[in-house]
Amino acid sequence: MKKKLISLALLITLLLSYSVTHAYQAPNKATVGSVATTTQKQPKYIFYFIGDGMGTSQRQITEYYLQETTGDATKKLLMNTFPHSAINTTHSMNTLITDSAAAGTALATGYKTDNGVISKDPQGNDLKTLVEAAEEIGMATGLASTTRITHATPAVFASHNESRGNENEIAADFLDSGVDYIVGGGVRHFLPEGWKDNQTDAFGKTIKSKRKDSRNLLAEFRQAGYTVRYGMKGAEEFRKETFKAGDQYLGLFTYSHLPYTLDDMHNDSYNAPTLVEMTSKGIELLSKDQDGFFFMIEGGRIDHACHPNDTPAAIMDTLAFDDAVKEAYDFYLKHPEETLILVLGDHETGGLGMGVNTDYFLSLSELTKAKMSIEVLQGQYDGDRAAFYAFIEENFGLTELSKEEKSLFEKSMDMVDEGTFTYNNKYKYDETAMAVTHILSERAGVYWTSYAHTATQIPMSAIGVGAEQYSGFMDNTTIANLTAELVGLSLK
Amino acid sequence: MKKKLISLALLITLLLSYSVTHAYQAPNKATVGSVATTTQKQPKYIFYFIGDGMGTSQRQITEYYLQETTGDATKKLLMNTFPHSAINTTHSMNTLITDSAAAGTALATGYKTDNGVISKDPQGNDLKTLVEAAEEIGMATGLASTTRITHATPAVFASHNESRGNENEIAADFLDSGVDYIVGGGVRHFLPEGWKDNQTDAFGKTIKSKRKDSRNLLAEFRQAGYTVRYGMKGAEEFRKETFKAGDQYLGLFTYSHLPYTLDDMHNDSYNAPTLVEMTSKGIELLSKDQDGFFFMIEGGRIDHACHPNDTPAAIMDTLAFDDAVKEAYDFYLKHPEETLILVLGDHETGGLGMGVNTDYFLSLSELTKAKMSIEVLQGQYDGDRAAFYAFIEENFGLTELSKEEKSLFEKSMDMVDEGTFTYNNKYKYDETAMAVTHILSERAGVYWTSYAHTATQIPMSAIGVGAEQYSGFMDNTTIANLTAELVGLSLK
Repeated sequence: MKKKLISLALLITLLLSYSVTHAYQAPNKATVGSVATTTQKQPKYIFYFIGDGMGTSQRQITEYYLQETTGDATKKLLMNTFPHSAINTTHSMNTLITDSAAAGTALATGYKTDNGVISKDPQGNDLKTLVEAAEEIGMATGLASTTRITHATPAVFASHNESRGNENEIAADFLDSGVDYIVGGGVRHFLPEGWKDNQTDAFGKTIKSKRKDSRNLLAEFRQAGYTVRYGMKGAEEFRKETFKAGDQYLGLFTYSHLPYTLDDMHNDSYNAPTLVEMTSKGIELLSKDQDGFFFMIEGGRIDHACHPNDTPAAIMDTLAFDDAVKEAYDFYLKHPEETLILVLGDHETGGLGMGVNTDYFLSLSELTKAKMSIEVLQGQYDGDRAAFYAFIEENFGLTELSKEEKSLFEKSMDMVDEGTFTYNNKYKYDETAMAVTHILSERAGVYWTSYAHTATQIPMSAIGVGAEQYSGFMDNTTIANLTAELVGLSLK
Repeated sequence: MKKKLISLALLITLLLSYSVTHAYQAPNKATVGSVATTTQKQPKYIFYFIGDGMGTSQRQITEYYLQETTGDATKKLLMNTFPHSAINTTHSMNTLITDSAAAGTALATGYKTDNGVISKDPQGNDLKTLVEAAEEIGMATGLASTTRITHATPAVFASHNESRGNENEIAADFLDSGVDYIVGGGVRHFLPEGWKDNQTDAFGKTIKSKRKDSRNLLAEFRQAGYTVRYGMKGAEEFRKETFKAGDQYLGLFTYSHLPYTLDDMHNDSYNAPTLVEMTSKGIELLSKDQDGFFFMIEGGRIDHACHPNDTPAAIMDTLAFDDAVKEAYDFYLKHPEETLILVLGDHETGGLGMGVNTDYFLSLSELTKAKMSIEVLQGQYDGDRAAFYAFIEENFGLTELSKEEKSLFEKSMDMVDEGTFTYNNKYKYDETAMAVTHILSERAGVYWTSYAHTATQIPMSAIGVGAEQYSGFMDNTTIANLTAELVGLSLK
């Protein structure tokens, strides 16, 4: 049996490498089917976790932070204890540094495409997704994300568009997708232009529309049979839902993205469901289907925090993501012979390096002093320098500034005063906020190389039926193709 | 069988996690023995490759560079095609950022220790190494490195010392170690104080001693029955050696480390054996032993290049390392039922991020313009600025300098003129040389966070008998313990 196993692994590797090696040439499928399906029990319940922007350093710093804050050096992230792992390449069709649209398309369809494209090939042809393939064989399907549900990663599973920016079109695709359970943020793309009601979103902000037409997709979802919840009130209702077989559900709790976990912890008024809650409720609904389910769950704001190099926000969202994995793991423990859990990234964001200068020691306890993400921090400097110093002392523990730190803050305030920017990032975080994330990171002993994504290989982990087939070095397209074969789905 | 396999994997994971979770408390062993040995054919030929400083980005950038320079996007590093992989944690006993001594000790003995310590616990007790355990059961043993053979990584397999700095003592330990095949650099620790002869080393430099006593370890090795070769002449002899069963061999070809691969490519006068040659010859000698062998092969200068953020030198040494892996792989193809190849790192060095600023494109072709490593580059600026600009244009393709690049070079030359240093790294590379590595890296679209190591998790890959047991997330100590159990060695 040992020999057979080894040669099986080799055969899979050879077949998978076929897929990898043609990555630049044309979209293609790995032909792993005959290997996977003839020797393997098919998993019935599939969890497809994606930590957006989650590379080795994000997984590692969060685990060490957990050890640091609990004082327990034996603590592990659950996803870092799964028995199987693989290393994934992430490049897109047109560049070695993928974006989330192309990486998500690879993970959702098994095909490479260009950056920015949502489950289409570069010529504009639709690529069938795992969600669509799961629906074909009667499985229930679910999508949960901490971002706008129309953001690239959830979008690639249930829509097709030449540009990730067309979120109003993507929202309309969701209606046609038939996905049974759709929860996250971004109600703005589902409401008719000029929308007004008395509702606030789960941040407490007025709900508005970003559509340029009169379609009320919430109403259309209701007509199609969905239970529809949105905003602050929707979040309260969400927590009380009970489901029966055949239910379909749309829950969009915020105008844009859900809050960062770090901000949620420090704001009692925030009311958005956590990724844990969205995962748990999703399991309740989807597990009523006797044909099993495919459930994609995205920790989408890990990436958002990494773009402006906000180390504590990235860590707290990675912890929240791992907590969501625990929900799936509990389900797996009840159905170990039928469940497959994959914990993936789509790419690394920020080039997070767990070391700086010539130091051999980290000071992760510095990061515990942060009481807010850069999303709340930005714009706090209003020209009053003394007030800003008091603010960052109170909210980030930034006291006893060194000469270099003081100089960086003064320069950042000069620039905000002058309206100039060196941090030429598209998110337009102000200079003073970026100075905080950089100084706090450096005090913790870590630093970043980029405000965008990086091209490095990333880890994935797996447990359950078929998990042992995820091993070695696998291209992101191979993950989708192997999963399809294991579950008995056709991506053709 | 499927169920049994899965539960076996889980059991291993639980047992291994026991090892991991006690990492901070005391040196310990994973008790994987009963699992591994009762169900498993024992591998007879063990290759233990260690890429010093090799994390995900080092493995990935080298592969993409290979694709870029060959114009073949299907090219893979051999080590990135092995069917099995695991993700390793690397922290030492006293800090999350390990050095090579503590990381090597973990990989050699299965125990954590403090940074700087060579196969002893922090209390000073010797820790038995895989090489020592292999000798106990009659296996042949070999150590090959591109560094001084007394440098931390090779040292931990054949010596015990409270400090990695005591290389003269470590050299004496090698004599007592009984290791059958020892090749690399660093003859300076094996010659008596004041040594002079007419020999040059493989760089063409005069051979001197660093010992503070009159011991001639080369002579002592000869008396102990070893064939001993050193320097330029030794390198020539080395290439012609033939071996018979029972031969023991010491080859030390340079005063200090072997040359960087990048420098070797551009200097016809360099004569040092490559890692490929040292691996190939080692296989010839060690495979004569009917009891099998344990062979540790280190790509030691990957780390050296990463410390001063020398991207092209790091890539070329990683390519050379992968070429050495090919030698082992060819052997594996002839003995697939008896061979185990592990390709490990010990830690990541430099915090290499494959992305910079807000860019989504790499320009790795910029790196092909480098004709030398920082080791040759440093000291080239001698006060003549025009000459230096001409030099870096000729040797690094650094033309059409931007205003920022020009400013960085001017500042670096100011600092060399003044004798001041901002790059406060222990290697004391001059400012102008560091400006070259940084500007070249940034032009290629990559950057670095550190001049030291980082605490991130790193990938390993495996092929051969028992390779499938290396999976999931494994602490570095677990690699040693699992290997011992698979081979039937006792580290107790």
